[in-house]
Amino acid sequence: VIRIAIDAMGGDHAPAAPVAGAAMARAALAEDILIQLVGQTAVVEAELERQGVGRDGLEIVEAPEVIGMAEKPVEAIRSKRNSSIALGLALQKAGKSDAFISAGNTGAVMAAATLVLRLYPGFERPAIGVPFPTADHPVLVLDAGANVDCKSQELVGFAHLGTHYARDVLGRPEPVVGLLSIGEEPEKGNAAVKEAHRLLAADPVLRFCGNVEGRDILMGRCEHGVIDVVVCDGFTGNILLKFYESVGKLLRTLVGKELPPEMQQSEGMRRIAHFLDYARFGGAPLLGVRGVCIIAHGRSSPEALASGIRVAAEAARHHLVQHMNSEFAPEAAAS
Amino acid sequence: VIRIAIDAMGGDHAPAAPVAGAAMARAALAEDILIQLVGQTAVVEAELERQGVGRDGLEIVEAPEVIGMAEKPVEAIRSKRNSSIALGLALQKAGKSDAFISAGNTGAVMAAATLVLRLYPGFERPAIGVPFPTADHPVLVLDAGANVDCKSQELVGFAHLGTHYARDVLGRPEPVVGLLSIGEEPEKGNAAVKEAHRLLAADPVLRFCGNVEGRDILMGRCEHGVIDVVVCDGFTGNILLKFYESVGKLLRTLVGKELPPEMQQSEGMRRIAHFLDYARFGGAPLLGVRGVCIIAHGRSSPEALASGIRVAAEAARHHLVQHMNSEFAPEAAAS
Repeated sequence: VIRIAIDAMGGDHAPAAPVAGAAMARAALAEDILIQLVGQTAVVEAELERQGVGRDGLEIVEAPEVIGMAEKPVEAIRSKRNSSIALGLALQKAGKSDAFISAGNTGAVMAAATLVLRLYPGFERPAIGVPFPTADHPVLVLDAGANVDCKSQELVGFAHLGTHYARDVLGRPEPVVGLLSIGEEPEKGNAAVKEAHRLLAADPVLRFCGNVEGRDILMGRCEHGVIDVVVCDGFTGNILLKFYESVGKLLRTLVGKELPPEMQQSEGMRRIAHFLDYARFGGAPLLGVRGVCIIAHGRSSPEALASGIRVAAEAARHHLVQHMNSEFAPEAAAS
Repeated sequence: VIRIAIDAMGGDHAPAAPVAGAAMARAALAEDILIQLVGQTAVVEAELERQGVGRDGLEIVEAPEVIGMAEKPVEAIRSKRNSSIALGLALQKAGKSDAFISAGNTGAVMAAATLVLRLYPGFERPAIGVPFPTADHPVLVLDAGANVDCKSQELVGFAHLGTHYARDVLGRPEPVVGLLSIGEEPEKGNAAVKEAHRLLAADPVLRFCGNVEGRDILMGRCEHGVIDVVVCDGFTGNILLKFYESVGKLLRTLVGKELPPEMQQSEGMRRIAHFLDYARFGGAPLLGVRGVCIIAHGRSSPEALASGIRVAAEAARHHLVQHMNSEFAPEAAAS
């Protein structure tokens, strides 16, 4: 049985959205999946009842405390040891769960994942991997957040993490990694990127296609072929991610202003909007921690959270953690 | 009379596009403008004749050599001293022209602008300013290219350059500058950005609104109000610019795939496509050089080049160079 813990108290629409997402995922996924709703039992039970959701394949794990969306992450994690975030991750650490997903306070989830699951050697913070919708197939961009000033070695680490994730979760047998830069030539880029290029090109394990540019991401390919993973520092990645989010918003504004209502609501327009909505990929993995932890957007819909549960289940089913252990912590893998 | 030199030999569609753009600009702009077509006289004359363009308000400036789009910039500038790029800029240096615009080899234009016009003290390379179309008004993002590893002082310099440009060319009386980062708080960002925030906040001249995020650019505003200028290092800016270019391409792909032909060709769709096409802003200024130099996309249409000529004329009409001189090179301004 694959056990996926979901933060029932986290996100702008909790507990309704996580509970509805869990119900949707249970209906859609294979029968060997158990979804663990982590939160205040009374609240979760009331919500299950309100939505008319049965208990089959669902389990409630009591967590008396709740971390608010606006609380300071590290303080909140230190002071609320029985929060849904802390206990959801502790479950995994204790071997009682295979993955954790939360739409709650992102900083708190990152801090807790670091404290509870711990990082592999060589990583200072978890890397946030974000699947970008492209013309072709989603491309995993990392780091999209936490590692602001990156040394070249960290960029190489992201390439390895992304390769595991793309293989086990995105179903790419031999993931191709590109290094985000401002030109294809190895000598283009800032100091860390130029050094990372050298290290990546010499890496015996990776399939490195060289530098990729801003324009290559959404095409899903560079001139050497398909790209599966794009590596960058968390400063660049975060700016790019938020910029991409706002593109969707700008388009909605333009469509609302320029197109007649019947065109706005046409089937084709809906497909385009769906295509650009990366919530459908179900959240972003925190990579570099010894476990599976998916952060979902605070505004996640039940569909997005169900999709996140599916992603977490893929990670567990394809032994992502074992594969990462065997590369990054061989002593743990052997024990 | 305002004299605008255009590289008649530069760009993928030269000489046809620059000649047609010059003719369009001459027809559209005030009568006190002289457009100087810099290139091989015989070629330019033949093109004028082919297009049936009269000579009023146009002048041909002979430049026997041509720098190809794929030539190595610095080598090309060193070996071809009589290229249209070098001579077009030399004209301005000699006081015989007020601005230069080229759709040719961008690297060569940058190298030539640096060599011929020279930089103000404190700048190591020209900063490329790119007006991004937003929901509200174009926002000038700089640097979008050349300054890859930026110190905080350079970011502050960009803020000053962008302020002059936004005031004199974009018509914003009191331009508001944002610093691109990954959160609004002053302590968010990489090392250079955090230090730049401190310097910008203490700057007595600028209207600094603090950090802005990737999502704020396309909205044209942050939580403190409108943004006119966004400052970032050339690595981040270049990646963002190319990413934005590819958004337009992705949308065209999606629209072509998902919408029926009559919807694709509707008036509203055309307005949306026009909105997202930043070629309509007529190129990107090279800032930090002692003069006006606009680089246009290699694929620029006649419309885009005419728009670039208009932008160059605005810069000249509003005394951009004199204003920059008085800030960055007071001895030159006084002489």
